[in-house]
Amino acid sequence: MSDEPILKSRRRPDVETTIVAIDNVRFGDGSYPVIAGPAVVESEEQILAAGRIVAEGGGSMLRSGTHRADNSPYSFRGLGDEGVWLLEKAGHESGLPTVTEILEPGNLEFISHHVDVLEVGPDNMQNFVLLRAAGATGKPVLLHRGSSATIDEWLMSAEYVLAEGNDDVILCERGSRGFDPRTSDTVDISAVPVTQQITHLPVVIDPTPVKGDPEIISPLALAGRSVGADGLIVAIHPDPENAVAGNGSQLGPDSFLKLMESLGIPMLRDEIDRIDRELVKLIARRLHSSVEIARIKASKGIALRSPDREAELIEEAREDARSLGIEPQYAADLMDLVLSYSRDAQRQSLDEDSAGS
Amino acid sequence: MSDEPILKSRRRPDVETTIVAIDNVRFGDGSYPVIAGPAVVESEEQILAAGRIVAEGGGSMLRSGTHRADNSPYSFRGLGDEGVWLLEKAGHESGLPTVTEILEPGNLEFISHHVDVLEVGPDNMQNFVLLRAAGATGKPVLLHRGSSATIDEWLMSAEYVLAEGNDDVILCERGSRGFDPRTSDTVDISAVPVTQQITHLPVVIDPTPVKGDPEIISPLALAGRSVGADGLIVAIHPDPENAVAGNGSQLGPDSFLKLMESLGIPMLRDEIDRIDRELVKLIARRLHSSVEIARIKASKGIALRSPDREAELIEEAREDARSLGIEPQYAADLMDLVLSYSRDAQRQSLDEDSAGS
Amino acid sequence: MSDEPILKSRRRPDVETTIVAIDNVRFGDGSYPVIAGPAVVESEEQILAAGRIVAEGGGSMLRSGTHRADNSPYSFRGLGDEGVWLLEKAGHESGLPTVTEILEPGNLEFISHHVDVLEVGPDNMQNFVLLRAAGATGKPVLLHRGSSATIDEWLMSAEYVLAEGNDDVILCERGSRGFDPRTSDTVDISAVPVTQQITHLPVVIDPTPVKGDPEIISPLALAGRSVGADGLIVAIHPDPENAVAGNGSQLGPDSFLKLMESLGIPMLRDEIDRIDRELVKLIARRLHSSVEIARIKASKGIALRSPDREAELIEEAREDARSLGIEPQYAADLMDLVLSYSRDAQRQSLDEDSAGS
Amino acid sequence: MSDEPILKSRRRPDVETTIVAIDNVRFGDGSYPVIAGPAVVESEEQILAAGRIVAEGGGSMLRSGTHRADNSPYSFRGLGDEGVWLLEKAGHESGLPTVTEILEPGNLEFISHHVDVLEVGPDNMQNFVLLRAAGATGKPVLLHRGSSATIDEWLMSAEYVLAEGNDDVILCERGSRGFDPRTSDTVDISAVPVTQQITHLPVVIDPTPVKGDPEIISPLALAGRSVGADGLIVAIHPDPENAVAGNGSQLGPDSFLKLMESLGIPMLRDEIDRIDRELVKLIARRLHSSVEIARIKASKGIALRSPDREAELIEEAREDARSLGIEPQYAADLMDLVLSYSRDAQRQSLDEDSAGS
Repeated sequence: MSDEPILKSRRRPDVETTIVAIDNVRFGDGSYPVIAGPAVVESEEQILAAGRIVAEGGGSMLRSGTHRADNSPYSFRGLGDEGVWLLEKAGHESGLPTVTEILEPGNLEFISHHVDVLEVGPDNMQNFVLLRAAGATGKPVLLHRGSSATIDEWLMSAEYVLAEGNDDVILCERGSRGFDPRTSDTVDISAVPVTQQITHLPVVIDPTPVKGDPEIISPLALAGRSVGADGLIVAIHPDPENAVAGNGSQLGPDSFLKLMESLGIPMLRDEIDRIDRELVKLIARRLHSSVEIARIKASKGIALRSPDREAELIEEAREDARSLGIEPQYAADLMDLVLSYSRDAQRQSLDEDSAGS
Repeated sequence: MSDEPILKSRRRPDVETTIVAIDNVRFGDGSYPVIAGPAVVESEEQILAAGRIVAEGGGSMLRSGTHRADNSPYSFRGLGDEGVWLLEKAGHESGLPTVTEILEPGNLEFISHHVDVLEVGPDNMQNFVLLRAAGATGKPVLLHRGSSATIDEWLMSAEYVLAEGNDDVILCERGSRGFDPRTSDTVDISAVPVTQQITHLPVVIDPTPVKGDPEIISPLALAGRSVGADGLIVAIHPDPENAVAGNGSQLGPDSFLKLMESLGIPMLRDEIDRIDRELVKLIARRLHSSVEIARIKASKGIALRSPDREAELIEEAREDARSLGIEPQYAADLMDLVLSYSRDAQRQSLDEDSAGS
Repeated sequence: MSDEPILKSRRRPDVETTIVAIDNVRFGDGSYPVIAGPAVVESEEQILAAGRIVAEGGGSMLRSGTHRADNSPYSFRGLGDEGVWLLEKAGHESGLPTVTEILEPGNLEFISHHVDVLEVGPDNMQNFVLLRAAGATGKPVLLHRGSSATIDEWLMSAEYVLAEGNDDVILCERGSRGFDPRTSDTVDISAVPVTQQITHLPVVIDPTPVKGDPEIISPLALAGRSVGADGLIVAIHPDPENAVAGNGSQLGPDSFLKLMESLGIPMLRDEIDRIDRELVKLIARRLHSSVEIARIKASKGIALRSPDREAELIEEAREDARSLGIEPQYAADLMDLVLSYSRDAQRQSLDEDSAGS
Repeated sequence: MSDEPILKSRRRPDVETTIVAIDNVRFGDGSYPVIAGPAVVESEEQILAAGRIVAEGGGSMLRSGTHRADNSPYSFRGLGDEGVWLLEKAGHESGLPTVTEILEPGNLEFISHHVDVLEVGPDNMQNFVLLRAAGATGKPVLLHRGSSATIDEWLMSAEYVLAEGNDDVILCERGSRGFDPRTSDTVDISAVPVTQQITHLPVVIDPTPVKGDPEIISPLALAGRSVGADGLIVAIHPDPENAVAGNGSQLGPDSFLKLMESLGIPMLRDEIDRIDRELVKLIARRLHSSVEIARIKASKGIALRSPDREAELIEEAREDARSLGIEPQYAADLMDLVLSYSRDAQRQSLDEDSAGS
């Protein structure tokens, strides 16, 4: 009626590009993280196997359906809450954050406690009640474009999440309803740069709706990277031929690994970035822990430095290196460095404590 | 996976065409009932006025938004539960059954107690959780086709309601997303007979999405009747220029009356059918009441027939007829007939009672 | 670049609605003429039979393919110029004007000498060279909307014909490419009133592309009338099951007659209008001829009136009436009237001649 | 009707992937040649400038409109045959083969004598008369997909060219009509691999219809390469702001050069391949000429070898090398090699001649 509200999703000179970070995975920083997993969690064995495949291939997140929506009321609805537990377990074992589709506000509290990202499917893009509820959880939301939604309508749906004070929206272009029976939907890769011009939110692509043929998914995955998408979704299954759902559109382990290889060097670079971030995180955690130990020791009057322990640690690192096939001296040097920083931090911390006392 | 389930929505030799009856309104019996009302309940005054216009024009149901979905999270969301109360009141005052859009399972119990038909909008056509919950209420469901849904997908969504044991589904064709900026959506009238070939459920049309121009809505309403649709939805507003929502697509009172006139003779015929059904219902109710009175009188030893009362009734009917401009003798004859049947029924009932004792 | 040219196809206060008249058939005057015929001329026998069916059912024009375009280069291309001759013959025998699709400027001269209306198919809607050439013939052009053309693009194509000084353009809405496999194309009936708002040219509809099922074609034909279309195209064939082309989308004789009956009273009214126009034309021609005769007689000194001849004419009319099952006196009175006018005109003409000499 | 004809466009085990070669440019061999040029030839100055820009940027072909089709009959129709002459001249000066759109069979003979590739635009994809005529010229045909054509329909149109015995068809995916006003058409990059699975013909992409924004064209050009397209079309203009036609969708010189740079190393590799092919061709031509000279000398009794001439050639090569900034010895060695082969060929040829006499 009156003046137009300012839309939070729009690019404006004063708004930075949003980076949505889930653990070490980052959407919107120029990398191309791959979200992969089976259409639906079928069993513990299946989802653990899927997690291993995704991790091995260099995927960044594990995705699977738990409370499932299907065109037909007579289809398998998923394992429900049990599926959520299994997905969480598979995430832990594979070291990957997880994402699952949400269908109703009713069980959002449970799901958002066990899963890292909440996915809103294309059919629910304009289920505004669900969007508002998802926004209110504070969890990152992966928002698919409806199969005949304009870009502006899609961003308006994102606005529902943002309006709840939740900035972590990842947009997913997954194709529009097309007229050609050869492709069930048209994956509109050209929508990626057009959308990125309008919004500061990251945009990933999901080429699954086109056709489940690995020979088609792979070039589209590569094209998504070239066009500047902020990530990729692919459906995989440990044994696609015997899958309960999503038949025909899930890549098997070999096709997935081949795809990841063809994404190649850039993917390795992402992997390195991820490990580096993990290293820094581990070092920080180590530092924090060693400072805690120092305090405890100090309070109990125990000597701080134990050269024997340090020598032992270094020797262990050498041995680990050997078994992993890298130069033992490299590991020893790393440990030396780590230990030296550790000592400095401990000393500094104790000085501050005594200064404060 | 295994054998295909039999779809309840499909025409089969052993399945009759479904007639969804709400009070006197029937969808699927060859009539063309008109559902009309404003996009959203704005105030008591507005919705009461709308009800009067719809009733006066010969519309069959009153429709308006209460808990409202809008593309933008910053738009007016409707009056919520208060809107539901006001819609119910307007329905009572105008003598029209009511329909409002539902958005979430959470408040379905409340809404289904106060409104006659639950509407599922095109954006929620594949909100399967909502469909299941709507089905479970047992209330008739008005199910819009999604703007890029195939007919088969639409029927699959209806299946969710039917699978809950609720047979009262009215399908609404409201157009598919088109590419021509001249018409925001293409109202696919040709989908009506195609859909009716496949399903036994009634199919109504809603030409609103094309363009709010009365000069366009009216010919489409006529075409809908010719093509065999089972009813029509039109958006009307007592004062379209000052409407809070749905601007530009709501007919004003004059345009609505003109449209209803152009629907003309067939509409009058429907009206007559409706009144006849009402007459039969009233007579049945009268008969039932008079039998009850007879029993009470008998149990208390009061004389059954009171010729004075009958003469009085006939005289009143004559007077009513005069004030309504119809022949008094017509009314008197009608009352004679009614009273004669009434007496027979009373007598028969008392005989049965004494036979049973 | 510079100022926009005024578009001739657009409605403007100073431009009247265009009526395209071909013999007695008028598009744009509120009637609903039906153009019917087989997809392609197969043989003399077939097209003559088709002409008889169309005429018998009350159709207004005979349409068939002669130089044929088909998706496949290996399909039957039609009988070519021979087909044109046969179509012309069938038109003469059935008393119906004819229409055939044109494909290239090369044979337009020939075709436009033998056929009454030139049809430009949806595939050629933007074949601007062909449009210009068709415009230049001066023959009426039946211009199909391309399957994904906007209304504005369609009118721009009409503009090519109009720009050649040819005002006789009939627009044909035949559906847009849709996504639903249930209907090969979506016949956008709503486009009819929208288009009529913008242009003064007549708009007919062709529901053939939806589905060849008579149960679908008939309701759409009725809806087209209700929505205000200026005419209808239907594909018919004397023996649809053995048709060489257009299989599955052509109505057989019975389905066609049933459709024409269901178009019913309004069609009869059109038929009457057509006959009346024919009557007036015949009378005018008769008058003209009798005046010519009078002049010749006068120049040769032969007596003008021959009462024997007149009595004979009246007697013949009586006899014709008897054999046609109408009241002989009706025919006699008609002849009296015709003869009386004839005499007056002859006399008047001779007076003028002598006055002029 | 009877048995289906075998489609020449389809991949079959016994059919190799088609490589369409125009001079040194090859479509279908894994390279990614870029076709570029202005929407329409406006003047000699403009098209010569465009040719220079395309050649400088590393483009492979020069493309421009001469006989132009435009939605409006009142728009600039191009320079016609004069435009063809100018395009040919610009092609010669820039060393690039040329391509222009054809509209009618009438002037195909003229155009095919002066231009290297005949382009059939999306509007004419089903102008079967034109396709047949284009096929009959024997010239390579660049066939755009219609804006709502299915892949199968597109290949059926290619079949019209192939059926004339002309195997040189390059398919161009240029997007389908979409519903989103943000992008006038959806460039369906996913159609590239799907189409390549079905046909052995090369498939190039033209992202122009999406939006003329260089920031959108460039990522799509890169994505086209990643997805495996066999080439790219981009619209460029020496001065886009003052272009007569195609405003807003033509890249300026800087944007074009930046795009070509971002296509980067793979483009350089293509360039090298092109030069190598050119080198081999030049050497072959040189060999042929020197043999001819030898024969002439022999017939006239002139000595075959002139060491002075050879020394002179080597010295010239050294000097050219210096001025081009490469090592003179490299050029000298090349010439030594060339001359040595030349002598061998001359000798061999003369021996054969005397043996034959």
